[in-house]
Amino acid sequence: MIDIAILGCGTVASGVCRLLKQNHEDIAKRIGQDIRIRYILARTPQKAQALGFSDDQICSDIGPIVADPQIKIVVELMGGTTTAFDSICACLRAGKHIVTANKDLIAERGRELFELAAKHGADLCFEASVGGGIPIIQPLKQSLSANRFSEIIGILNGTTNFILTKMAAEGLSYDRALALAQELGFAEANPESDVMGTDAARKIAILASIAFNSRVALSDVYKEGITEIDDSDIALARRMGYVIKLLAVAREVEGKVLMFVRPAFVAAAHPLASVNDSFNALFVHGDAVGDIMLYGRGAGSMPTASAVVGDVMEVCRNLIHGGCGRMGCECYAQREVVGIDELESSFFVRLRVSDRPNVLAGVARAFGEQGVSLSSLVQSPVRDGTAELILITHPARERALRNALAELMQKDYVSRIHTFMCLDVADEEE
Amino acid sequence: MIDIAILGCGTVASGVCRLLKQNHEDIAKRIGQDIRIRYILARTPQKAQALGFSDDQICSDIGPIVADPQIKIVVELMGGTTTAFDSICACLRAGKHIVTANKDLIAERGRELFELAAKHGADLCFEASVGGGIPIIQPLKQSLSANRFSEIIGILNGTTNFILTKMAAEGLSYDRALALAQELGFAEANPESDVMGTDAARKIAILASIAFNSRVALSDVYKEGITEIDDSDIALARRMGYVIKLLAVAREVEGKVLMFVRPAFVAAAHPLASVNDSFNALFVHGDAVGDIMLYGRGAGSMPTASAVVGDVMEVCRNLIHGGCGRMGCECYAQREVVGIDELESSFFVRLRVSDRPNVLAGVARAFGEQGVSLSSLVQSPVRDGTAELILITHPARERALRNALAELMQKDYVSRIHTFMCLDVADEEE
Repeated sequence: MIDIAILGCGTVASGVCRLLKQNHEDIAKRIGQDIRIRYILARTPQKAQALGFSDDQICSDIGPIVADPQIKIVVELMGGTTTAFDSICACLRAGKHIVTANKDLIAERGRELFELAAKHGADLCFEASVGGGIPIIQPLKQSLSANRFSEIIGILNGTTNFILTKMAAEGLSYDRALALAQELGFAEANPESDVMGTDAARKIAILASIAFNSRVALSDVYKEGITEIDDSDIALARRMGYVIKLLAVAREVEGKVLMFVRPAFVAAAHPLASVNDSFNALFVHGDAVGDIMLYGRGAGSMPTASAVVGDVMEVCRNLIHGGCGRMGCECYAQREVVGIDELESSFFVRLRVSDRPNVLAGVARAFGEQGVSLSSLVQSPVRDGTAELILITHPARERALRNALAELMQKDYVSRIHTFMCLDVADEEE
Repeated sequence: MIDIAILGCGTVASGVCRLLKQNHEDIAKRIGQDIRIRYILARTPQKAQALGFSDDQICSDIGPIVADPQIKIVVELMGGTTTAFDSICACLRAGKHIVTANKDLIAERGRELFELAAKHGADLCFEASVGGGIPIIQPLKQSLSANRFSEIIGILNGTTNFILTKMAAEGLSYDRALALAQELGFAEANPESDVMGTDAARKIAILASIAFNSRVALSDVYKEGITEIDDSDIALARRMGYVIKLLAVAREVEGKVLMFVRPAFVAAAHPLASVNDSFNALFVHGDAVGDIMLYGRGAGSMPTASAVVGDVMEVCRNLIHGGCGRMGCECYAQREVVGIDELESSFFVRLRVSDRPNVLAGVARAFGEQGVSLSSLVQSPVRDGTAELILITHPARERALRNALAELMQKDYVSRIHTFMCLDVADEEE
């Protein structure tokens, strides 16, 4: 019998309790011992009672949990970066092992927590903090640990992926698709963290730290959300054989780490293009294994519970067979980070220009002067006497693109940069 | 320093040696110790010399390896089910841990090996035996171990997937696509094991044993290969919005296990449809996590080496931190297996019939009498005065389909069952 405590009483905690009960028999057979939830920490006891806990199991503060030597594993499902941090530290100091789903905490205060865990020889598992139930952390740190990674590319936010899927599938505007997402529970009342790309940025920072063995921060991630995407962009992309996805990318550039979250054109035949609705995926390129993709539900009570309980079972195996603390933090490299200007990619650009002589020449020259080679250029008239220029560049440095666009914005014949996205940044190996 | 020995000197062994050298520094940093190949067992010393080994490292028999207590891990890359079996047993009895890539051995003699490993508290890792470098075994046994699985669906053979991809992409006949595959090294001179579905069947038997915690055998897997697939089937599928893939499926049917390998219609929008060329993928449905897909290169020297060395590193962690034998065989259930007749699916049927009155009625009646409901039926004339009938059924039991087709083959107006495949068997959850 292995006693655990759960901190928190929300959706994920509810899923974890349900899963431990539902699959109790198989879980016990697989690890060789029963798992018992000895305590649950709840701000309001009624929530814990609603989950079926009795008064002797319900705590309103962490004291009894820290003090009880029988409690081996503490599952932190409170969220937030202050009380959760203090609670985890108290538990680690008391010799307990930690399983958490707390992405914000790992992204922002991971270093301190991993150091404290290592000091106490404790496990600190966080599979559930990125990608819900999809096995991501364990494959990166274990199955694939013989590889050097050159790039990881993710669709890591279910809200934005749902919105973009609906815009593409049903021709909805961004606002209508967001409203639908909120209605169906795929977006929150305040969707900012999702639609601005912040959620995805936190996740890619965590994954990049693992993939590149270097601690990197949220502030190192260039970030653009989906709020400026037009359904006309999506329709254009489809005609060209692409879909638009909000990609979270961490890539090695000359030994340094470049990270960004931004909408991008993905070829329809690429596996990432078929990742739809609220599904997530991580595409990884390792020097031995080549391209790998891990796909599944990135959020939700039961998928997240699957990751949490999977981690609890792993800690149980360590307790039973020995090996606690075997998977520590491996940020031994101190790679520098570089900014978005260093990104090398093809780009898709849509400009609104005056429909008169020499505009095309002027635009082409602005790119040429920056060394940006154009792969295709289409001009179409717009009803109001202006014209739209759609360009695809050959691979070029972002800095060169931005310089060219800045130059063009000075011209009186360019009224607007409608769209500027990277294209084929998720190129499959040959 | 952890000493290992490699048995075998072929493509995978070459990849393993190369990878251990190439990523030596990162591997050592990640596990905290160096890995040294102390011995290599080679039938001809020249092959080992070509890989850079010196005479004192090259063995022609397993004696020195078994006898040396410093050797902690033995990597079996010989293949085959006799000498490899004996070698592994000798090493396990001598207290060594095993990493293997030997699918045939695990599929056919796995039970004995796992029992012997458990008896000696030894690790027996086999990630590389299924799906090359794709993390599959570890996610199923660890990350996802809180789940009960209802179904696993794989594209597990790169040769056949390459052939089917080329037939679809380039309109090649089966024979031409096979020849191309052989030319490019994606198919062997004798491709039988691949194109008859045997390779995929072995793999799904291994995965089903894990997913359903029940030892199942190759002989329990219903098997159809790709040799009868027509490029006209593929073109028809495309027009209907499908692709044809050789699927390896293990599914729970009323508590029992049903397994098959057969060509099937997969909806173009399904993630499995975008698994092309020699890539493999495994689609898993777990009761907590929902749908997960793991995708990557299922074969090749370096991808397979990635899985082998990943396992070696895992055993090293166990040696260093404690925990050897932590991941044993978990076949605690003794589920029965059922045959293909119990499969419930939609089906695609193509019949060649005489073009005369009452044929359509007769065909419809044959299905109706078996309780098979038709979703769509298209009749088209063929140049020679016959007609082709293309039917899609609603979900029905395979037994009913086979009964209906057997009945129809008795009729003088039915000359041929051109095609009979399941359709939408890889249905995504809503």
